[in-house]
Amino acid sequence: MARLVMKFGGTSVANIERIRNVARHVKREVDAGHEVAVVVSAMSGKTNELVAWCREAAPLHDAREYDAVVASGELVTAGLLAITLQEMGVQARSWQGWQIPILTSDAHGSARIESIDGSDIVRRFTERSEVAVIAGFQGMHKPTGRVTTLGRGGSDTSAVAVAAAIKADRCDIYTDVDGVYTTDPRVVPKARRLDRVSFEEMLEMASLGAKVLQVRSVEVAMVHKVPTYVRSSFDDPADPRPGTLICDEEDIVEQQVVTGIAFSKDEAQITLRGVADRPGVAAAIFMPLAEANINVDMIIQVVSDDRATTDLTFTVPVAEFEKAKKIIEGLRGVTYTELAGTTDVVKISAIGVGMRSHAGVAAKAFKALAEKGINIRAITTSEIKFSVLIDSDFTELAVRTLHTLYGLDHAA
Amino acid sequence: MARLVMKFGGTSVANIERIRNVARHVKREVDAGHEVAVVVSAMSGKTNELVAWCREAAPLHDAREYDAVVASGELVTAGLLAITLQEMGVQARSWQGWQIPILTSDAHGSARIESIDGSDIVRRFTERSEVAVIAGFQGMHKPTGRVTTLGRGGSDTSAVAVAAAIKADRCDIYTDVDGVYTTDPRVVPKARRLDRVSFEEMLEMASLGAKVLQVRSVEVAMVHKVPTYVRSSFDDPADPRPGTLICDEEDIVEQQVVTGIAFSKDEAQITLRGVADRPGVAAAIFMPLAEANINVDMIIQVVSDDRATTDLTFTVPVAEFEKAKKIIEGLRGVTYTELAGTTDVVKISAIGVGMRSHAGVAAKAFKALAEKGINIRAITTSEIKFSVLIDSDFTELAVRTLHTLYGLDHAA
Repeated sequence: MARLVMKFGGTSVANIERIRNVARHVKREVDAGHEVAVVVSAMSGKTNELVAWCREAAPLHDAREYDAVVASGELVTAGLLAITLQEMGVQARSWQGWQIPILTSDAHGSARIESIDGSDIVRRFTERSEVAVIAGFQGMHKPTGRVTTLGRGGSDTSAVAVAAAIKADRCDIYTDVDGVYTTDPRVVPKARRLDRVSFEEMLEMASLGAKVLQVRSVEVAMVHKVPTYVRSSFDDPADPRPGTLICDEEDIVEQQVVTGIAFSKDEAQITLRGVADRPGVAAAIFMPLAEANINVDMIIQVVSDDRATTDLTFTVPVAEFEKAKKIIEGLRGVTYTELAGTTDVVKISAIGVGMRSHAGVAAKAFKALAEKGINIRAITTSEIKFSVLIDSDFTELAVRTLHTLYGLDHAA
Repeated sequence: MARLVMKFGGTSVANIERIRNVARHVKREVDAGHEVAVVVSAMSGKTNELVAWCREAAPLHDAREYDAVVASGELVTAGLLAITLQEMGVQARSWQGWQIPILTSDAHGSARIESIDGSDIVRRFTERSEVAVIAGFQGMHKPTGRVTTLGRGGSDTSAVAVAAAIKADRCDIYTDVDGVYTTDPRVVPKARRLDRVSFEEMLEMASLGAKVLQVRSVEVAMVHKVPTYVRSSFDDPADPRPGTLICDEEDIVEQQVVTGIAFSKDEAQITLRGVADRPGVAAAIFMPLAEANINVDMIIQVVSDDRATTDLTFTVPVAEFEKAKKIIEGLRGVTYTELAGTTDVVKISAIGVGMRSHAGVAAKAFKALAEKGINIRAITTSEIKFSVLIDSDFTELAVRTLHTLYGLDHAA
């Protein structure tokens, strides 16, 4: 007997027929003797509808009221799945965030889970053999008693956090893909599904553009060491494939140097040419951006021959591009000859814990990309990944090149 | 300055444009210096959609889960109205049933309100001049911590109960009609809108088929003496009509003998002919119906000339007709010659507190109906109303006849 958390996203619960399919997956685990908590998202499209109504009511709206509105979608699916499970003869009840309770910060719209009291759920596993069906994506801020939401994709985080709270043996994230791939199979048909990937690698992949899991859910899984599977809800409930296990590095026997290639088009490049180089000029530029909550990622500084001026290139999220340019145009005390920028760039990243012990991994990539005539605009590296910023026209070519270079193509 | 509760039903909040209209009504009262709590229903159609999903998931479903699902609709409108009010510069926050809390019995699907703690809402009137926007139709059963609903039309009851809890000066029920009429204007074009109607009369009208208010809401208003207006949400928010005031009998100066004519097609007639008349035969028939929760309304017993047998006629709700017939067919120890029944009947009622002090009010009706050739199948009377059961073909004719008879037609 094991204790499991199973999480199902919006496309998996889009209508009653699909909710029945989800119930069959749950029943399989219950019939196998496991204790099961299920976390569900809203039916696909419902959250968007609720968000659109909030925007129509007021473009800038109270985040507390937004949370009260959009958290309602998950209540519906939790109740409907409980009804469907009961109809199949499985003991079940739904739980709203405040009922458990799942307590969060008061950062409405992107609240952080602070604590989960799993005692009632666990007690009912024992006393009633009852499946807990939990509304994902939400919690409650205790001092105000108000409903909070965890941000888009927050149900993944709900699931992993519940798994940690009830000391589950594993957390299964059911989704519309059958696991984590070495890269996006739509870009590289030779992409392989990974059997295992380490928490650290998954965290980098999610942060660097892979959309299969919310970044925060991976953080929580890593901190609490929750073995987490990514698997398909569209598999036959009687005979599903295992998917990809996200686990501790030491549980992965055959470690690759590079595990996956991620890419993100959510990058905009800003270049300041001929900046008068004096002490503190970088702070004068980057402090105001930080104060405006603009996340600056890659930074390159090229000093001119006469050492009097410098060219400064950096990236910001696409959504912050215009705002960042305005802030720079308004700076006092910083002189430059030209402000240029573009959103036609892509950040391509290679991720692998093997980089820690292998030198020259990134250098091979620079050479391979240069041979294809791809110009690298910026580079960042960390212990287990490196990223390059290139023209977005070369996205597919660059991803395929690195995928082949690091031996990730499948055999067929 | 007064303290008000304003209630808006599903058609009044069917989309964002209508929610804006509702917000204008609220703002008018706030601008006049009043303290306002608003109770809202789900957008029209939404509750039906949620109910249909529950039924699709399982024809017979757990009422606790049904409540968790269907109560979500009101959360959406409460949040959206709060956002819309804020956009208009009115301080507002939404309240879910469990947040206030509104505590109820555990009769899921038709729970009764047991207590409401209005202290936070009142405190925020004073400290923040904040409008409370309350999700109607729902509460929480404290011992289990689960969400309950009050049954169809339950938001009316929420509104009146909140008004009692916060000691409001009045409760305004905004709806798609502009008040309570002497009868259904679609049947009698000469029906008049009433300026005032007593709690007792309104309770009878609602019980006897008038659909303008939920019966329980009138009971609560009567018990707590909450002056309640029924008025139109489609009036110009800048210049609305007052609607109909439901109030204490003593606050109505010009009392009519008959205030209104109600009719209900939700009646089925069952007749047992040639019942062997012996002591206890009525109990032998009606006890099993009562045990099956079938509400028997009108009863007529006609003893035969030889006094050995009797004909027994009674009515049950249409929804219980088949069930009631099956129970009677299964009775042991009751002999009869024929079991007949029909749903082609209508119950027509005249209501007025003036009947207490006027004799022969019903007799005039029997005569007038007889003159039109309308056969009366059964009669019931109480202190302030009488009802007749007739063929449903004569519905309109009978309602018009009584409406004219009691001087209810408007002048034009």
